[in-house]
Amino acid sequence: MRPNNRNREDLRPVTLEAGVSRYAEGSCLSKFGGTHVLCTASVDENVPRWMKGSGKGWVTAEYGMLPRATHSRNNREAARGKQGGRTVEIQRLIGRSLRAAIDLTKLGERQIILDCDVMQADGGTRTASITGAWVALSQACDKLVEQGLITETPITDKMAAVSCGIVDGECRLDLEYIEDSNAQADANFVLTETGGIIEVQASAEDVPFTAAEMAELTRLAAKGIEELCKMQAEALKS
Amino acid sequence: MRPNNRNREDLRPVTLEAGVSRYAEGSCLSKFGGTHVLCTASVDENVPRWMKGSGKGWVTAEYGMLPRATHSRNNREAARGKQGGRTVEIQRLIGRSLRAAIDLTKLGERQIILDCDVMQADGGTRTASITGAWVALSQACDKLVEQGLITETPITDKMAAVSCGIVDGECRLDLEYIEDSNAQADANFVLTETGGIIEVQASAEDVPFTAAEMAELTRLAAKGIEELCKMQAEALKS
Amino acid sequence: MRPNNRNREDLRPVTLEAGVSRYAEGSCLSKFGGTHVLCTASVDENVPRWMKGSGKGWVTAEYGMLPRATHSRNNREAARGKQGGRTVEIQRLIGRSLRAAIDLTKLGERQIILDCDVMQADGGTRTASITGAWVALSQACDKLVEQGLITETPITDKMAAVSCGIVDGECRLDLEYIEDSNAQADANFVLTETGGIIEVQASAEDVPFTAAEMAELTRLAAKGIEELCKMQAEALKS
Amino acid sequence: MRPNNRNREDLRPVTLEAGVSRYAEGSCLSKFGGTHVLCTASVDENVPRWMKGSGKGWVTAEYGMLPRATHSRNNREAARGKQGGRTVEIQRLIGRSLRAAIDLTKLGERQIILDCDVMQADGGTRTASITGAWVALSQACDKLVEQGLITETPITDKMAAVSCGIVDGECRLDLEYIEDSNAQADANFVLTETGGIIEVQASAEDVPFTAAEMAELTRLAAKGIEELCKMQAEALKS
Amino acid sequence: MRPNNRNREDLRPVTLEAGVSRYAEGSCLSKFGGTHVLCTASVDENVPRWMKGSGKGWVTAEYGMLPRATHSRNNREAARGKQGGRTVEIQRLIGRSLRAAIDLTKLGERQIILDCDVMQADGGTRTASITGAWVALSQACDKLVEQGLITETPITDKMAAVSCGIVDGECRLDLEYIEDSNAQADANFVLTETGGIIEVQASAEDVPFTAAEMAELTRLAAKGIEELCKMQAEALKS
Amino acid sequence: MRPNNRNREDLRPVTLEAGVSRYAEGSCLSKFGGTHVLCTASVDENVPRWMKGSGKGWVTAEYGMLPRATHSRNNREAARGKQGGRTVEIQRLIGRSLRAAIDLTKLGERQIILDCDVMQADGGTRTASITGAWVALSQACDKLVEQGLITETPITDKMAAVSCGIVDGECRLDLEYIEDSNAQADANFVLTETGGIIEVQASAEDVPFTAAEMAELTRLAAKGIEELCKMQAEALKS
Repeated sequence: MRPNNRNREDLRPVTLEAGVSRYAEGSCLSKFGGTHVLCTASVDENVPRWMKGSGKGWVTAEYGMLPRATHSRNNREAARGKQGGRTVEIQRLIGRSLRAAIDLTKLGERQIILDCDVMQADGGTRTASITGAWVALSQACDKLVEQGLITETPITDKMAAVSCGIVDGECRLDLEYIEDSNAQADANFVLTETGGIIEVQASAEDVPFTAAEMAELTRLAAKGIEELCKMQAEALKS
Repeated sequence: MRPNNRNREDLRPVTLEAGVSRYAEGSCLSKFGGTHVLCTASVDENVPRWMKGSGKGWVTAEYGMLPRATHSRNNREAARGKQGGRTVEIQRLIGRSLRAAIDLTKLGERQIILDCDVMQADGGTRTASITGAWVALSQACDKLVEQGLITETPITDKMAAVSCGIVDGECRLDLEYIEDSNAQADANFVLTETGGIIEVQASAEDVPFTAAEMAELTRLAAKGIEELCKMQAEALKS
Repeated sequence: MRPNNRNREDLRPVTLEAGVSRYAEGSCLSKFGGTHVLCTASVDENVPRWMKGSGKGWVTAEYGMLPRATHSRNNREAARGKQGGRTVEIQRLIGRSLRAAIDLTKLGERQIILDCDVMQADGGTRTASITGAWVALSQACDKLVEQGLITETPITDKMAAVSCGIVDGECRLDLEYIEDSNAQADANFVLTETGGIIEVQASAEDVPFTAAEMAELTRLAAKGIEELCKMQAEALKS
Repeated sequence: MRPNNRNREDLRPVTLEAGVSRYAEGSCLSKFGGTHVLCTASVDENVPRWMKGSGKGWVTAEYGMLPRATHSRNNREAARGKQGGRTVEIQRLIGRSLRAAIDLTKLGERQIILDCDVMQADGGTRTASITGAWVALSQACDKLVEQGLITETPITDKMAAVSCGIVDGECRLDLEYIEDSNAQADANFVLTETGGIIEVQASAEDVPFTAAEMAELTRLAAKGIEELCKMQAEALKS
Repeated sequence: MRPNNRNREDLRPVTLEAGVSRYAEGSCLSKFGGTHVLCTASVDENVPRWMKGSGKGWVTAEYGMLPRATHSRNNREAARGKQGGRTVEIQRLIGRSLRAAIDLTKLGERQIILDCDVMQADGGTRTASITGAWVALSQACDKLVEQGLITETPITDKMAAVSCGIVDGECRLDLEYIEDSNAQADANFVLTETGGIIEVQASAEDVPFTAAEMAELTRLAAKGIEELCKMQAEALKS
Repeated sequence: MRPNNRNREDLRPVTLEAGVSRYAEGSCLSKFGGTHVLCTASVDENVPRWMKGSGKGWVTAEYGMLPRATHSRNNREAARGKQGGRTVEIQRLIGRSLRAAIDLTKLGERQIILDCDVMQADGGTRTASITGAWVALSQACDKLVEQGLITETPITDKMAAVSCGIVDGECRLDLEYIEDSNAQADANFVLTETGGIIEVQASAEDVPFTAAEMAELTRLAAKGIEELCKMQAEALKS
């Protein structure tokens, strides 16, 4: 049985609270069970140097974790003087995923920076980040429309992310930490509301898994992401 | 008149919520008006190398600010590859202040690391950090007693911190950002509940100020800190 | 039509030359068309600190690119003082993939470091790296057996890697640079000889793609990897 | 009794030698007993980027210590690749203090950089640095006037710095190392010649101290600084 | 007797293969026995900032070694986050040497960057680098002439480099690693085809050596370099 | 004519003052005209890790320059976060040179670190450093003998260093900055009192120079170094 009697096809209790930051143009506190990520979207009227004059905008992301977001304390990356490989990998994934859901030309020559900071971690921090960051990004885009800086939202797709994995031989949706650390395979999906693929990353832990298992993981992810997209829409309404 | 009709001798609305972190041995969400700092205390059974075998413990602090804790986004220190001078200065102040309120011999050969992460900044982040960190530290010490690792709390003093400053020629308690950025002088006090001095840092902005003004700032600080110490005690009770 | 009249299901001309390094315990010069990667395997009798006493070994990888491996010169990472995000992401992928194909307990408490250095780049450097690194790793393991340090090879799976992508609406195997830079989707597969999944990473470029397209890319990859595994076996024989 | 039979209200033998550097626009070798600091002021016609076009100038400071300025050798910060927390804290204090004694608008859009390098350390290096740096800064300003680049000196205050502390329960002026390392409290004062407060930093070591003790430390500092300001004037005359 | 029955006045078997890089404007694979260095010349139409507007060009070099170019693996400099002292010393030598053989005014305001990457090391990597880099540089200059960007080659001298040393009391040309590591003295010469001195670096290992020995080492170097210059000319012809 | 009517075979006025540091085991303030270098020798009872248990000692050097040692201010290496290439090259030269003049076995398993810090620069800082560092090293060794830690000095050679160069077609001894910056060739010699070669580094600036010129530079250096060795002996006596 899963922790908290969860069914293998069920998400954890998820809450998405938009507009939590006093200063940011867009924000969302994204909670997937015990995983809590604060996502903010900051509009910057400067684009990176290599984009200047292109007439196009840019979306990028940074990811961090508070030192005591986890069971035992992790050293602070700022104190160590560099971001770890895992951090770099995750923030590149977040940025790439969101850029696939926005029309950078419609955004105009400006940049939106998404900061995803994990307050508390219990598995699935990267997917909770992407799901919350999309809300923050949407809110920031709406604000640009309100301010008359652009005429319509550049968001092209409703999308969210979720992890799946194979635990005790069973394909499960939205792993929490205790499951994740015992999984035979672990996969992260970024899909549109209707199941279009934006990004898939799947890894076997010790033993390869089959294409049939991969298909089942994909089915679970599509189910979960459809639900998440509804919650995102709710969060943006209120 | 001050913002929000505050009297010059008044603190902002302060809340101290202890035990907010699922994993940390001690924690406190410290809010001074719009300034919100999450403070966690992590017990580490290893001391720094230069203390090994001394039989004494250590208390240290790290400080950080989320990139969008402020009006405009600050670059992430982990991405820049180093902590800024202001960060280093503040975290040294936090650690030094708390070490003055604890008996390191009674702590035993272990380390407590205080992480103070600013979620939202509106002036006085270092004093909100110290005030909250003392709560987190006390909680962590109580836990060590509960676990039988030490026989009594090594905390020796009730203490807190507050900023004061001279704005429009008037000495004021607990400046918020809009005041701080226009202050003629700015001072941070770390005092015990009964007004004993642990740390004082005062700076003139453009024009030197007088010893009489310094005395008035100290009086205000003692008043505010007495109130804060009561709130700390309340926070630890619940 | 693809460059060089290649069929969409065809690999580029591939050569895998084992034993090219005078000093390394294992090595392979892996060429996928114009992409040339020198892979070496170095046996290190020390494991990382966190593994000491575990009785298990470790496999890790580092990736680099000569500054002029590409059309225009890239700055040297050693001179810039840090590895870029892309480099970190790739070397983590290489290490993770190879660890899934080896029994770390049978390796004994020692480490094998795989260095994949790109001499010339024309797309697919990470998959050429993994394919060549597996040959180098196998050779190094065989050498440990020869030396009597272990009794049998710890390699558990025959595996290789290849990229696929959607270009001009067509699913294609083993993209070269000119295709990759115009692809609608780009996927990297690490599979066993018999199609077991070790790692899949797929990204949409601008527009999401479908599960059906994903299935076709997977089929192409399995076909290509079966061929690559035969070439690896040949390379190890000679 | 204090070392060298010093009275508790006495400075150590102090010498301030202006104009010691062949190249710098201003310079002072500042000796407080066994503490020797070489202070140079370098005029730079460029201001930091964030000040460009403001019409105002800037004053900043850097602090360093030769590796063998102390009893045992300290690692060279340039070799370690970063300035330590103590260094950063001190150089920020020096810069802030001197900016409070100069009219940046009168300086014109240029920068003066103060380098304070400790040749030999015996306590009070930061206060010897500030006292000497003020001389170097004054000399550099006089040179700008001589060269006709500005019409009058932008220096607004005569100021100096000194440390005080509580040792063996006694308030003392200008601690040397052996006293400093045993002090119950340690305070650094930057004051004008007439006792105006520019910067105060006071720390309890183990036990909090009282407001009355703080007042006595302040009185001692004002006495010492009055003497130091006379010596600065002498140094600038010759 | 020397390894491989080499005479003390003999070079190792040397091959210089020009044009080995698909992308670089000039390139040479330089092999001195078991020492293999890939040298590429990259033309960059930007000069360093301090040269802008000077009308003159610049030539600079970077040096690197693959981690397993040597008997035991060296840590990757990009991963360590800095280039080692030996690397910095060598690349400065390469750049300085080549700048002495070119007329920077004739080059025009552009930069040529020479990358010397050691694939395999068996002594004399810096001299093999310089010898190969001159070929790559010449080829790049010829290309600039062909493209009509300059009217004649800016190369002013035919030059090459070789190491010499005193081993077992005997002066020898072109040391390989086993000799180098037992040498009483080690010298690197960069000379023109006719023996003009561009750069000499000679070091005693334990015991000083004499001016007469220095003269003999110089004679051997001139002999070797004359031969190398002929091979360079051959390499450029084909 | 040379500056200050110096003859081409003359050293600048040189003073070597031993024992200038209160704390260091050996020290020398080395002045060659306007070039002033403070050299200290620090005995460290720990050797680098790779030498532990070897029974042999180690001698190493670090070099630095105060930011305003030169006409215009140089950025502080500690603030930039790395030592420049020139610094690294020089400190390696100093260390290597001194190791050739000492018997590391007789030193015992301990390390002597030479810090050479340039207070003021007017050409020839590296040779003034070596000449002064030998005095500091000798003094530190004598102290080890005095303390009974070793039975006799491990110093094996009297040695010093000087620069020579070709200026206006003339070979000259001990260049000062104005000469050095216009030299056709520049050479640094580290020789024993009797002319034995420890280290030679010679570079042509624009045009190669001849073996005959090299011989003349060597003769001048030997003359100068003989004089310097006498001054070193004097400095150690007093």
